[in-house]
Amino acid sequence: MLKIDIDEIDRTDCGNQIHQLIQELFPICRSITGDGVRETLSIIKKHISLDICEVPTGTQAFDWVVPQEWNIKDAYIIGPNGEKILDFKNSNLHVVNYSTAINQTMSLDELKGHIHTLPDAPDWIPYRTSYYNPGWGFCMTHKQFLMLEDGNYEVVIDSEHSDGSLTYGEFFIPGSTKDEILIFSHCCHPSLCNDNLSGVAIATFLANLMQTKESRYSYRFVFSPASIGSITWMSENEHKLANIKHGLVIAVAGDNGHMTYKKTKAENAELDIAVQVVLQQKGLEFDILDFSPWGYDERQFNSPGINLSVGRLTRTPNGCFPEYHTSADNLDFVKANALADSYATYLDVFNVLDNNYTFINQSPKCEPQLGKRGLYRKTGGHKDVGKRELAMLWVMNMSDGSQSLLDIADKSKLDFDVLVRAAADLLDCDLLAIA
Amino acid sequence: MLKIDIDEIDRTDCGNQIHQLIQELFPICRSITGDGVRETLSIIKKHISLDICEVPTGTQAFDWVVPQEWNIKDAYIIGPNGEKILDFKNSNLHVVNYSTAINQTMSLDELKGHIHTLPDAPDWIPYRTSYYNPGWGFCMTHKQFLMLEDGNYEVVIDSEHSDGSLTYGEFFIPGSTKDEILIFSHCCHPSLCNDNLSGVAIATFLANLMQTKESRYSYRFVFSPASIGSITWMSENEHKLANIKHGLVIAVAGDNGHMTYKKTKAENAELDIAVQVVLQQKGLEFDILDFSPWGYDERQFNSPGINLSVGRLTRTPNGCFPEYHTSADNLDFVKANALADSYATYLDVFNVLDNNYTFINQSPKCEPQLGKRGLYRKTGGHKDVGKRELAMLWVMNMSDGSQSLLDIADKSKLDFDVLVRAAADLLDCDLLAIA
Amino acid sequence: MLKIDIDEIDRTDCGNQIHQLIQELFPICRSITGDGVRETLSIIKKHISLDICEVPTGTQAFDWVVPQEWNIKDAYIIGPNGEKILDFKNSNLHVVNYSTAINQTMSLDELKGHIHTLPDAPDWIPYRTSYYNPGWGFCMTHKQFLMLEDGNYEVVIDSEHSDGSLTYGEFFIPGSTKDEILIFSHCCHPSLCNDNLSGVAIATFLANLMQTKESRYSYRFVFSPASIGSITWMSENEHKLANIKHGLVIAVAGDNGHMTYKKTKAENAELDIAVQVVLQQKGLEFDILDFSPWGYDERQFNSPGINLSVGRLTRTPNGCFPEYHTSADNLDFVKANALADSYATYLDVFNVLDNNYTFINQSPKCEPQLGKRGLYRKTGGHKDVGKRELAMLWVMNMSDGSQSLLDIADKSKLDFDVLVRAAADLLDCDLLAIA
Repeated sequence: MLKIDIDEIDRTDCGNQIHQLIQELFPICRSITGDGVRETLSIIKKHISLDICEVPTGTQAFDWVVPQEWNIKDAYIIGPNGEKILDFKNSNLHVVNYSTAINQTMSLDELKGHIHTLPDAPDWIPYRTSYYNPGWGFCMTHKQFLMLEDGNYEVVIDSEHSDGSLTYGEFFIPGSTKDEILIFSHCCHPSLCNDNLSGVAIATFLANLMQTKESRYSYRFVFSPASIGSITWMSENEHKLANIKHGLVIAVAGDNGHMTYKKTKAENAELDIAVQVVLQQKGLEFDILDFSPWGYDERQFNSPGINLSVGRLTRTPNGCFPEYHTSADNLDFVKANALADSYATYLDVFNVLDNNYTFINQSPKCEPQLGKRGLYRKTGGHKDVGKRELAMLWVMNMSDGSQSLLDIADKSKLDFDVLVRAAADLLDCDLLAIA
Repeated sequence: MLKIDIDEIDRTDCGNQIHQLIQELFPICRSITGDGVRETLSIIKKHISLDICEVPTGTQAFDWVVPQEWNIKDAYIIGPNGEKILDFKNSNLHVVNYSTAINQTMSLDELKGHIHTLPDAPDWIPYRTSYYNPGWGFCMTHKQFLMLEDGNYEVVIDSEHSDGSLTYGEFFIPGSTKDEILIFSHCCHPSLCNDNLSGVAIATFLANLMQTKESRYSYRFVFSPASIGSITWMSENEHKLANIKHGLVIAVAGDNGHMTYKKTKAENAELDIAVQVVLQQKGLEFDILDFSPWGYDERQFNSPGINLSVGRLTRTPNGCFPEYHTSADNLDFVKANALADSYATYLDVFNVLDNNYTFINQSPKCEPQLGKRGLYRKTGGHKDVGKRELAMLWVMNMSDGSQSLLDIADKSKLDFDVLVRAAADLLDCDLLAIA
Repeated sequence: MLKIDIDEIDRTDCGNQIHQLIQELFPICRSITGDGVRETLSIIKKHISLDICEVPTGTQAFDWVVPQEWNIKDAYIIGPNGEKILDFKNSNLHVVNYSTAINQTMSLDELKGHIHTLPDAPDWIPYRTSYYNPGWGFCMTHKQFLMLEDGNYEVVIDSEHSDGSLTYGEFFIPGSTKDEILIFSHCCHPSLCNDNLSGVAIATFLANLMQTKESRYSYRFVFSPASIGSITWMSENEHKLANIKHGLVIAVAGDNGHMTYKKTKAENAELDIAVQVVLQQKGLEFDILDFSPWGYDERQFNSPGINLSVGRLTRTPNGCFPEYHTSADNLDFVKANALADSYATYLDVFNVLDNNYTFINQSPKCEPQLGKRGLYRKTGGHKDVGKRELAMLWVMNMSDGSQSLLDIADKSKLDFDVLVRAAADLLDCDLLAIA
């Protein structure tokens, strides 16, 4: 049985290490293709021996085609008085991601048709993309936008679209069975910390730890661009999907909000119950969302032709915090303690899934005599029963081969940990067998 | 796909027309058999080309036998002082429906044993029947009853029971499939407007409109007496029942109360969900009742040997408004705007049922690329997704051949209309096929 | 059909008789084996012709072995000043049940390691046992404990463990079918009234009455020690288990609290619904508990290799009243009126189970004409329908061979009694047949 002692994690140290990796990845300008993703994966590779795969532009990926690579060297706007009023070097969010190149002088009016701002958050730069609709644009604070003066602007985006490839990274840890747990983190967003350097960095540290553990499940970590990236990964690796029993999209895991789980399409899958048990037993506030085909890559994994049991475990979900997809999702916004707490929670989900066995009671006619095996207290007549004895009674009573420990936890309202220990004791004296 | 634009209905005009038909039908003295039903059906026939069927007295109808015809020419009571104190010509409710003939002078005491009143509503005449228990009686206001003076009364009911037939009307509109929707309205009550000239008149106008529409379902409208009438219709037309997929009893649809749906016996039939979706999307108050074997003819349609999926959609249901089965259920009690609103609601139920297809996603592995088909907005990075795009994502995600659009509406909480439009767009570009 | 008229029970007389039997049984020192149980069963045998069975020490009973007999003649403690400060003759709770013999003088300190008290209830003597852990001990009030003076104590327990047998009693009443209802009461507790002389005495009177009734079910009453007793009974009588369709553990049925039903493991068994219907129709407060593998012998009956549909019907359950397992659970604590009320409730459960037939409507196409069979009122047009007619309509509508009267009660919200009478009437005129 997998045993990761969540309470033994040094959360300060662990949170700081994760935050440090985020700092290292923050400045890189990522997109759905191009050198930004490559550079990101090569940094991850310093922690875990990632397989980095390149899928050529033009490759069919189910209904999609791998697009051209986009790389950008520079971008800026020079105002009527000759000053550089916007510079890609200050923030890669300033350029609409995947913009075509431009080098032109134009009137303010013409320029304005290409500028995106957030009137409701006038100090923040929005993050915008234009992946499948060739065009160019800039993003700036609304404050700056309001102060733009009439006149001619020199507008430069030194970007290039060219045949190349889409890049993803994969890391596999074999378990004692071929059943797999998939961990997916999207790595296509530029300088945005919570979405999703938090997920990328935590997944790196999870992989790092899990390769040192013995577990029933194999673990497959995938780092790829969102949407076209996960679609391409599935299309290229369709033969691997059959072994995936459970999957988690790990994202938005560094803000101060509470944890939020979005269920699989089935909504009562083993994973759904496991995550809810973990969140309940943490004793902190949390939210459970029903599945919907909108959000991150769980959409793709839960499509009807793929149908993997993949949920999404985040802190405050996408779109639900004001800093989402803005320059305010920065290095200050993600906190070491929140990152460490998310990390520990993911590990606990692994714990629960790995230990969620189904047993068959080997002495099923009435209760067996626990006392003669040293498993029961010595005097009788007391008002109630100890938690450990009660856990053994529940496990014995429900273990007819159709109920897993999670089912027993749900029914008995006992902590999963207590049930795991009770089951281990009963297994030791042959009162249980694995179904 | 059926498309009736509910918002385009001219409710004033439509409500007035329905009310006018009710006015024309109001004076007729109907019963379970006899000329009153015949005259009623012949008036309906001026609007739709109704088949009028006569089933002879004595015909076996399952456990029942078609009873004799009842016809009445006159009825009155002459008081001790020689004045006519009650006259059938003023209200056909004055005579207990199906009364045997009488022509006799009797004491007040003897007469009182045959008089029905409503002590709690002393100004109203009750409606009473004596179908399967030969006898006679009068109904009057309780006020009048209290003022009856001692003495002899001349009591006349000039009615006749004779072999003849039971009469019903049927109107069939073929659709593109042989699957049928049954609309049933009982037409046996004398001068009572809400129960059920409202249902009879609305059904007439529904039939009139539906014969001009192309729809998947065929529609069968039946106008017949309640209980023995519906039983006789089923007994005579047993071969037609297999094609009936859904049915609605239309009644009590003209009062000012909100709409009330009584579910089919299954309680989660497609019809049950369709009606609830329609009522929810109207945005007005409504009630949902569980099935019970008491009420109108839904009792018969849902009997265990018939088992049709028939619900009942009314406004304030039978027995739940004080004017029910009294002279106060008159021409003032039913309102043109309520009649029009009910009419529009029934049509919307037809809309939903007709468009409730089940689809199979033709590109089920991950989401298809909607953008290249012009079905998706152009820039990315926004906080949320448009309703139309979301509807397409839901339809694609759930269309594995097991989920209808109503199932998708229930799950997604999106409006049925929006889903129908999304499905039509996806169908157009071959991303869906009808299951 | 079984017909016990609950309202005709003379509750004063009946409650007094049950209380008298409890008084007679109270002084006996029972244990899981030994003469106390034997004497108890021989007193019950004065009321019903009980079969008394002896199972020898050493007999294998599933995972257990029948233990030695324990018999005790005397026990006391003589204090430093030569006075007898504790005497078994005053209360058999003073000795830890199943204590080994001792006859020794010891210091207060040594003695204290063997004394059990209730600091929170300083006037009461606790009940403690030491069945499977050889040792000895005394129980006393905490008040007395605090006043023990230093010095030497003469400690005597004149008990004996010896090969012998475990004793249980069984009483069988054949019904018209071989399907059985099992009634189980544990009889191993010494002078404790609510737990469980109340159950033992009530079961005796139930058996006494039921042997005079004609019923569909056979009834099997078992009086045995708890745990090892029920386990031994099942082990010795495994061939009888297949006929047991429902079972009730009867215990703790004499206090003033309201009734509490603990469901079978299935939690929606016919028995579970029957008991809930009975408790609802009593109109008094009651509690329903989910199954858990802790409590009385329902644990054993619901173990996965036995899987009998056995629930537990008590008043305030074990462990939930302060007097539980203390000297305060005495003759004053159980009340004649509560005992009579429990007695009547158990009988009503028998009533409901026995009458819970499933029928098939013999005239299933539409409603049959009840009027021609004298089963329907004579005038029509009324606002609502009588309870009796409504019950007939529900029974006719739902009797397709898959729904029992309890299912119909649940759906219709009608009283079970009313449905039974309606079904009897319909059966009489061949409109129903038993499925």
